[in-house]
Amino acid sequence: MIKRLDEMVDLVRSAGRKYRIAVAWAHDANTLGALKMAYDLGFADPILIGIPTEISKSAKKAEVDITGLRIVEVGNDSEACAKAVELARSGDADVVMKGLVGTDKLLKAVMDKEKGILPPRAVMTYVCAFELPSYHKLLFMTDPAVIPFPDLDQKVAMANYAIEMANRFGIENPKVALVGPSEKVSRHFENSVEYSVMCKMSERGQIKRCVMDGPLDLFLACDPKSVEIKGIPTPVDGNADILLFPNLESSNPFYKSLMLFGGAELAGMICGPTKPVVVMSRSESEKSKFYCIALSCLMA
Amino acid sequence: MIKRLDEMVDLVRSAGRKYRIAVAWAHDANTLGALKMAYDLGFADPILIGIPTEISKSAKKAEVDITGLRIVEVGNDSEACAKAVELARSGDADVVMKGLVGTDKLLKAVMDKEKGILPPRAVMTYVCAFELPSYHKLLFMTDPAVIPFPDLDQKVAMANYAIEMANRFGIENPKVALVGPSEKVSRHFENSVEYSVMCKMSERGQIKRCVMDGPLDLFLACDPKSVEIKGIPTPVDGNADILLFPNLESSNPFYKSLMLFGGAELAGMICGPTKPVVVMSRSESEKSKFYCIALSCLMA
Repeated sequence: MIKRLDEMVDLVRSAGRKYRIAVAWAHDANTLGALKMAYDLGFADPILIGIPTEISKSAKKAEVDITGLRIVEVGNDSEACAKAVELARSGDADVVMKGLVGTDKLLKAVMDKEKGILPPRAVMTYVCAFELPSYHKLLFMTDPAVIPFPDLDQKVAMANYAIEMANRFGIENPKVALVGPSEKVSRHFENSVEYSVMCKMSERGQIKRCVMDGPLDLFLACDPKSVEIKGIPTPVDGNADILLFPNLESSNPFYKSLMLFGGAELAGMICGPTKPVVVMSRSESEKSKFYCIALSCLMA
Repeated sequence: MIKRLDEMVDLVRSAGRKYRIAVAWAHDANTLGALKMAYDLGFADPILIGIPTEISKSAKKAEVDITGLRIVEVGNDSEACAKAVELARSGDADVVMKGLVGTDKLLKAVMDKEKGILPPRAVMTYVCAFELPSYHKLLFMTDPAVIPFPDLDQKVAMANYAIEMANRFGIENPKVALVGPSEKVSRHFENSVEYSVMCKMSERGQIKRCVMDGPLDLFLACDPKSVEIKGIPTPVDGNADILLFPNLESSNPFYKSLMLFGGAELAGMICGPTKPVVVMSRSESEKSKFYCIALSCLMA
C-alpha cells in the first residue's frame, strides 16, 4: 500500500516500461522540466507537439536539455491538441498531456465524437491524490475540476474511478467518505439523499471494492478523535482514503485550501477517456506536474 | 490592524471592561477552562447556568478553580438556554455561550419570538476569523455553520456582518472575496449571478466599507502569484481579508480542512442576535473556545 507520492513513482519505474506521453503545445518551461525528470528516470518517452523552434527556445530558457525527446511539428495549438489525441487514439501514445494551451481546447479534442478518445456515454471527471504533512496516508478526492453539479450516475462513476485509482496504489478496499456539511440525512438536502442511495448501492454490491459511508463531514471522514467525541458509528471511522464531493462549489475551494494552506503535494488526472489525460494549470509547480505524469503512467 | 488572535485578546483587555457571559448548561470542563482563562485575564465575568453540584464536579475533574464565578441554578438544559437568553435580553449579560447542550436547543431559545434576542427579519449567521501559519494575516469567513443555502439578501447580510467584524479588528476596508470554483460568470451558475449583483451593490455603495470582488477561486482570493500568472485583474489581488462562500456544502469542508490540515486557530460567533452568541462544538479545543469568548466580547 502506497502512502507517499514518491513511492508511486518507484512503482511506476519498477514496471520497466517507457510510457509515450503526447504533449499538446509543449511550449512551456514547467511542463518541459517535469517531462525531462520523468524521461531521465526512464519511465517516460515524451512526444513534444508544437513549433520546434519555440519548444527549443523554452527549453533553453528553462535550462532543460531536451536532447533525445521526440518533437512533432504542428502549426497552432488546436492542431497540437488534435494531434495529441490522434496519437492516443491510434495507439501511438499512452497518455495525453496539456502544454501551454487552455484546458477547454484540449478537452474539446478529447471529447470529439469522430476523432476523440472519450467513449460514448462515458463520464469524464477528475481524480487526484494528495500527500499531506498532517494526514497519515494519501487522500484521494473527486471531482475538484470538471463536473459542476454531478448527478447520481455521475457521482457513482466518480467513486468508481477513484476506487480504481486507489486499487492501483495497493489500497484493496478504500474507505470512501461522501462529504457533506454534516452527517444528517434529510430529503431537503438532495446530496444527502443521493449519498444514501450510493451507500445502499455499495451494500448491494452495485459499487464494489470499497467501504462507503456518507454523508459525513470532514471531521468524521478524516479525524478519529471527532468520531469518538461525536459517538457516530461509521465504517469510514475518521480514516478515509477517498473523499467524494457533491459539486465543484464544494470540492474546488477544499482542493485549493490543501494546496495553499495544507502544504499538499498532489497527483491528478482526468478519468473517463480511453487514455489518461493530464491537465495541470500553469500555476502548478514542476514537481506537481511530474507527479501527474507518473500517476498517468501508473493508470495507463 | 490586528493580525493575530492574541492581539485581539490584548485589544479586548485594553477596553478595561468585564463582559458578562451567560453560559447555558455550563457542565463541561473545556468550556469552564476557557472561561476561567478569560476571567483570570480580567475581561470576563462568567455566569454559569446549570446544576451547581454538576458544575463543581466538572470543574474539579478538570482542575479548574471556579471560585469567584457566579452560578445560577436551573433544572435542565432547556431552562439553562432560556435563562441565558433571558439574561442577555434584560441587559444582565453581554454574551450568550453554549455549554454542554445541543446548538439547536440554544438557537431555538435565541430565536424565540417572545423571549428571544433575534430581531424580526434579522439574518442569523456565523462569522469566524482564522489564524493560519501559511497566511500573512487573519482570514475571516462566512458562513460555515448556519444557513444551508443563503439567498442574495442573506449573502449581503453575511458580508455585512463579516465586514463589521473586520472593522473591529482595525481593518478599514477589508477585501471581500466571493468564493466560487472559478472566476467565470455565467447565468448557469446561480451563485456567480448573485456575486455579480453583490459587486454592483458594493460599487453603488449599497454594501459599504469594503473592497468586493467575485466570483473568485481560492487562488485568486488568497495567492498573489496566481493572480499574476492568470493575469486576471481583481482588486482583491490575492490578498483577501474575508471569504464569503455560496452555501454550507462549500464552506463547511473548507472550514474543517483549515482546522484539520492547515494548523488553524480560530475565533467565531453567531451574528444577528442583539448579543453575540458563542456555539463551539464539543470537539473544539479550550484555546479555540477562549478565542471565541474574546471575540464575542470584542463584538459585544
